[in-house]
Amino acid sequence: MQIGFVGLGNMGAPMARNLLNHGHAVKVFDLSDEAMCALVQAGATAAASPKAAACDVEYVITMLPAASHVRRVLTDVDGVLAGLSPDAAIVDSSTIDPASAQAFAQLAQAQGNAFADAPVSGGTGGAAAGTLTFMVGADATLFERVTPLLRAMGKNIVHCGPTGMGQVAKLCNNLLLGITMAGVAEAMSLGTALGIDPRVLAGIVNTSTGRCWSSETYNPYPGIVETAPAARGYTGGFGVDLMRKDLGLAADAARAVNQPVYLGALAEQLYRAMSASGRGGLDFSAIIKLYERAGAA
Amino acid sequence: MQIGFVGLGNMGAPMARNLLNHGHAVKVFDLSDEAMCALVQAGATAAASPKAAACDVEYVITMLPAASHVRRVLTDVDGVLAGLSPDAAIVDSSTIDPASAQAFAQLAQAQGNAFADAPVSGGTGGAAAGTLTFMVGADATLFERVTPLLRAMGKNIVHCGPTGMGQVAKLCNNLLLGITMAGVAEAMSLGTALGIDPRVLAGIVNTSTGRCWSSETYNPYPGIVETAPAARGYTGGFGVDLMRKDLGLAADAARAVNQPVYLGALAEQLYRAMSASGRGGLDFSAIIKLYERAGAA
Amino acid sequence: MQIGFVGLGNMGAPMARNLLNHGHAVKVFDLSDEAMCALVQAGATAAASPKAAACDVEYVITMLPAASHVRRVLTDVDGVLAGLSPDAAIVDSSTIDPASAQAFAQLAQAQGNAFADAPVSGGTGGAAAGTLTFMVGADATLFERVTPLLRAMGKNIVHCGPTGMGQVAKLCNNLLLGITMAGVAEAMSLGTALGIDPRVLAGIVNTSTGRCWSSETYNPYPGIVETAPAARGYTGGFGVDLMRKDLGLAADAARAVNQPVYLGALAEQLYRAMSASGRGGLDFSAIIKLYERAGAA
Amino acid sequence: MQIGFVGLGNMGAPMARNLLNHGHAVKVFDLSDEAMCALVQAGATAAASPKAAACDVEYVITMLPAASHVRRVLTDVDGVLAGLSPDAAIVDSSTIDPASAQAFAQLAQAQGNAFADAPVSGGTGGAAAGTLTFMVGADATLFERVTPLLRAMGKNIVHCGPTGMGQVAKLCNNLLLGITMAGVAEAMSLGTALGIDPRVLAGIVNTSTGRCWSSETYNPYPGIVETAPAARGYTGGFGVDLMRKDLGLAADAARAVNQPVYLGALAEQLYRAMSASGRGGLDFSAIIKLYERAGAA
Repeated sequence: MQIGFVGLGNMGAPMARNLLNHGHAVKVFDLSDEAMCALVQAGATAAASPKAAACDVEYVITMLPAASHVRRVLTDVDGVLAGLSPDAAIVDSSTIDPASAQAFAQLAQAQGNAFADAPVSGGTGGAAAGTLTFMVGADATLFERVTPLLRAMGKNIVHCGPTGMGQVAKLCNNLLLGITMAGVAEAMSLGTALGIDPRVLAGIVNTSTGRCWSSETYNPYPGIVETAPAARGYTGGFGVDLMRKDLGLAADAARAVNQPVYLGALAEQLYRAMSASGRGGLDFSAIIKLYERAGAA
Repeated sequence: MQIGFVGLGNMGAPMARNLLNHGHAVKVFDLSDEAMCALVQAGATAAASPKAAACDVEYVITMLPAASHVRRVLTDVDGVLAGLSPDAAIVDSSTIDPASAQAFAQLAQAQGNAFADAPVSGGTGGAAAGTLTFMVGADATLFERVTPLLRAMGKNIVHCGPTGMGQVAKLCNNLLLGITMAGVAEAMSLGTALGIDPRVLAGIVNTSTGRCWSSETYNPYPGIVETAPAARGYTGGFGVDLMRKDLGLAADAARAVNQPVYLGALAEQLYRAMSASGRGGLDFSAIIKLYERAGAA
Repeated sequence: MQIGFVGLGNMGAPMARNLLNHGHAVKVFDLSDEAMCALVQAGATAAASPKAAACDVEYVITMLPAASHVRRVLTDVDGVLAGLSPDAAIVDSSTIDPASAQAFAQLAQAQGNAFADAPVSGGTGGAAAGTLTFMVGADATLFERVTPLLRAMGKNIVHCGPTGMGQVAKLCNNLLLGITMAGVAEAMSLGTALGIDPRVLAGIVNTSTGRCWSSETYNPYPGIVETAPAARGYTGGFGVDLMRKDLGLAADAARAVNQPVYLGALAEQLYRAMSASGRGGLDFSAIIKLYERAGAA
Repeated sequence: MQIGFVGLGNMGAPMARNLLNHGHAVKVFDLSDEAMCALVQAGATAAASPKAAACDVEYVITMLPAASHVRRVLTDVDGVLAGLSPDAAIVDSSTIDPASAQAFAQLAQAQGNAFADAPVSGGTGGAAAGTLTFMVGADATLFERVTPLLRAMGKNIVHCGPTGMGQVAKLCNNLLLGITMAGVAEAMSLGTALGIDPRVLAGIVNTSTGRCWSSETYNPYPGIVETAPAARGYTGGFGVDLMRKDLGLAADAARAVNQPVYLGALAEQLYRAMSASGRGGLDFSAIIKLYERAGAA
């Protein structure tokens, strides 16, 4: 397949590499020459603009930091929409708000191009290994069409409903993740303050009704899960600032539909406090540091 | 074994029955004659007071609503401590605060009797089926000693550490449970308000990082999990008022050790609002009703 | 003076009338013909577009619901910026986020026009009586220049600092207002639930350290302040939905500068819950209804 | 008058001195010999126990840290109730929960003695100057009777209703105070992060709807109010740990009557976080430090 790819950051670059590895022809664009060069060395063709990356391809994939970037990449004079062939489809894997995704879909459809939102989970590790989960918002036909393409980059390709629902699925999951991680941090901190052995507590929670991914797989208390960021000083993983961004998207979406998110709004402030104190680059499980007491061992 | 049992409520009665079913001799006491009669018909001996129930037995088990009841049952003139044989041990399966459990242990030890806190999870169903989980706070010797006794009533007998740690384990787990359930309610409500199919959203969460018991096994959105209270009008299960009680114990314990519990304190208010609006008797997953919007389908 | 006025809603219409009453010549524009007619009957000139309202005037005042409206009114082909004379200044009295105000100022300044943000407090009553407070973001020269103009519509004209600071002042004040009102609702509800006479409690608070405008002047408990909306079924006043909007602006601004707003974020959810339950049109002091208990008198 | 006084701490000692200064005969008791000596030097008589302090007096005043102390001082074998003359009355000026106050009143009344709860505001400064406010829970007759006594120590003697209502008034006021102070800290921090001059912002708030004692008289931002603790490094004043205690009493009282206190519960966690980080001894307006950002000026 002929594919355009815009956005070669920590996630986009390995995703584009996996497309090349699967034998696809990939035209890439990024503002960073360095990022472009690395992909060209891996077999991609350099494009001079998003528009150029979109010319004569069947699909354009965008992987960008925020909705404002997606808007510019799509709608600028040199943008993707200006270059797209009549039957080509856009797959946006950026994590953005659902309303923007739906607005972009309308812009694309207005000129006859299909648009799917397909945010991912799995992090940079999953991007490199080609094991990402794609949460896809698209009609059934478009979902069928893009699935083979996404299989080159991911393992689970999930149809979440019509346009925008990929973003809804991602932000609702991450809203819950932000809450459960802070909840586990709170429960582990309280338990140890009351004298229980943290390994014992984690063991009980993990076989009981408090069980959750944040406790079992990614426990924020150091030394409980060897493979978790807590075991390596909260480096790597999914950063506090990324969690903040996703909670912000969820908060905005909630405001737009007048839906209260009591715990989510509070959790957003907690991750923000971590970031405001200069720890936004740590893995988000470092939220447990907010619960540390002065002088506690 | 000769066992005294004080407190024949919804939990205590089936627990005492299971002791009888395992061939133990059980002397029972409860303020309700009716509750006493039912157990006597099942083979128990009626005791005229907690003291009488404690005479000439190896173990006394207490299963009471709150720490104030345990205190009275133990320390009244007619109480357990006044009747206990020198080598007998007390097992308190009530859910109370850790500090009270530790204080009761000291009272017992001061007169040479061992005391273990052993709160349970598993509900009335687990009590009837003899499949409760016991979270035991006791030294290693006492834990060994009471394990066979508890096996007559439960399936998992977990050693949580020294006295009080059974209560710590239970309240920390339930603190987290109260948070994750409200978090799932929030995420499901937000997602459906944004247009996603709730079954699709639950499916994604349950295979992703938001995964938790409250979503997988006990999802508060109606129709997601057939066996959950949400599928039967939030009847049965673990009541809002019981969750409120446990969050209150966690909040008190947190205050005592000066440990912030941001999400837990907020969650307590949410369950309280449910109770204050007359819905304290519903299963605690009914917390999702707090997130309903007027006129929403 | 020659003045253009765009936005003749509940606030804008009486403000424009006061300009006429002070002898100014006013060209008005609104999407509603009805609103236009009413002002023309009062002596204004109808303009066919924002651009037309901006032609040949010394000042253009905009009073619009949100930043998106201000942007369109300013930047559309038929917009204010397209019609403005070289020395004319724009005064935006809409309540919007500070960053947008600063962006609009840059657009105006790029073509040589001054721009001041000047949101108001005082409500429709103050607009009609000409007693509004204007919180002005502008350099000292511009502030001097617009002060006589604003005096025709308001009593207190406060210089809050450079561009955007009028909006900052308003949203910080209203953030605090939203918190204190909910706080008073909480304290009054708790006190009465504990048995104190609400008049006695209000009297004590108002002479003590809990004293605040929300308690003294606008107490949410019915019957404490005769002139407050609580005395007339929470009609009139400053609506829940307006408070929601302002708390949303504060929340967005806080996110942009990474500043935690714990209480503000929670208060936003509470007002949202009021709105989601169909009570967004009541005065914001109706937040006390969230604290009512079933069966309580 | 003959008065017994139990509890000669930071508040009790100057209160007892003022009784002496007004010509009353005072028998004092405290666990600290030093505190006793100081009062004896000022003219008081030393009592060997609370019981001794209660013998042959018309009133016993207690000023103690918590309800547990009051209970012991009243009910111990050597306690006040054991020594009290038939017509003597107890005035408890400790800040405790209303339910305990009501229980103590019942104990006293059961043996024919009147009991009033009369917590104070005004701090150590007001205690020394004799300008405290007393919030009195008592029937009308008892209120009349104790008013002259309290006038020797305070300026405002307020009748809050029957027994316990003095405590209700105090804890509701302080609940609101804890919320408004954190709210002011939040608004001032957000405003300055957005670029406004803090003096300008305080000036606007203080003449607008955000106006409150915490902003006008006790603003937490340094340099706004010269006489506030913020101007002297948050020393002196009303400590974080005292605010924590009062918010804890309010939270407990709210739980007892099933009344949600969303903002109060969250505020309690914020003051607790201050205390847990080793800053519990600072004035409670130091809560603004929780909102500081790393690297902000």
